[in-house]
Amino acid sequence: MKKIIAGAAFGIAALSIATSAAAQVSVEDAIKFRQAGYAFMSWNMGKIKAQVIDGQPYNQDQVAAAANAIAAIANSGMGALYPAGSDTGTGFRATKVKPEFFQNMPDVGQLAGSFNTAANELAAAAATGDQGAIRAAFGKVGETCKACHDKYRAK
Amino acid sequence: MKKIIAGAAFGIAALSIATSAAAQVSVEDAIKFRQAGYAFMSWNMGKIKAQVIDGQPYNQDQVAAAANAIAAIANSGMGALYPAGSDTGTGFRATKVKPEFFQNMPDVGQLAGSFNTAANELAAAAATGDQGAIRAAFGKVGETCKACHDKYRAK
Repeated sequence: MKKIIAGAAFGIAALSIATSAAAQVSVEDAIKFRQAGYAFMSWNMGKIKAQVIDGQPYNQDQVAAAANAIAAIANSGMGALYPAGSDTGTGFRATKVKPEFFQNMPDVGQLAGSFNTAANELAAAAATGDQGAIRAAFGKVGETCKACHDKYRAK
Repeated sequence: MKKIIAGAAFGIAALSIATSAAAQVSVEDAIKFRQAGYAFMSWNMGKIKAQVIDGQPYNQDQVAAAANAIAAIANSGMGALYPAGSDTGTGFRATKVKPEFFQNMPDVGQLAGSFNTAANELAAAAATGDQGAIRAAFGKVGETCKACHDKYRAK
């Protein structure tokens, strides 16, 4: 779990991608890969929600694996998937990112850091199997998702 | 790292998803989420390839984070994303899965288990920072990807 590094990497990578290996991908692929990351996290959020919020049978291995996937995706340096020019364009579908995202990188970096911290705390809670702690940590992840969506994602 | 559980979960989930929380997603969403998982893994494979095969500057944190993302996605029970009826259909795009995939679940489960094992070994190698070991483990992951693609993915 690399909370600080991951948060910092987002800001740094988004601001200065020229030296990053990930910068080699096209704008279209960058949009596609970031959409893929968010979609895959949303599937795993859905599994956790089903089991700790909606009352479906609790499966410790499934919830821990789902939380690990969310955290590992969050920690993988997705900031590099926001290269210059990717404020518009189509990956799997047209990007919903607002232009304001690219004009407020310090704020974006902070939001991304909060998300990464919450994702890592969810993974830590999920590893314990304490459903109350998982529920609370899940709620915090949802809040950090929403905080960025509200500001920087078109409806 | 749950090598055995993950491999088994793929086969079990794909064969008997009725009781799985993940079964609640529509066929369209299941296809979308599996495409998302593979796309996000491919981005991370690309980053590792760039640094341990193609001679781009090596960054231990990036490579370890990329390998962790691949392993966590592999371990997240993607078998549940192959529900009955998802042999055709469109997620982010039309599925390329061959009908034979659904007719050979024991083989698919074995291929998935090999992939998961290789992904976990790559993550373990990446954690050490030994570039020779990472290169070898990366090659094995690629082989296990290709083994399934050759049999069960349309060109």
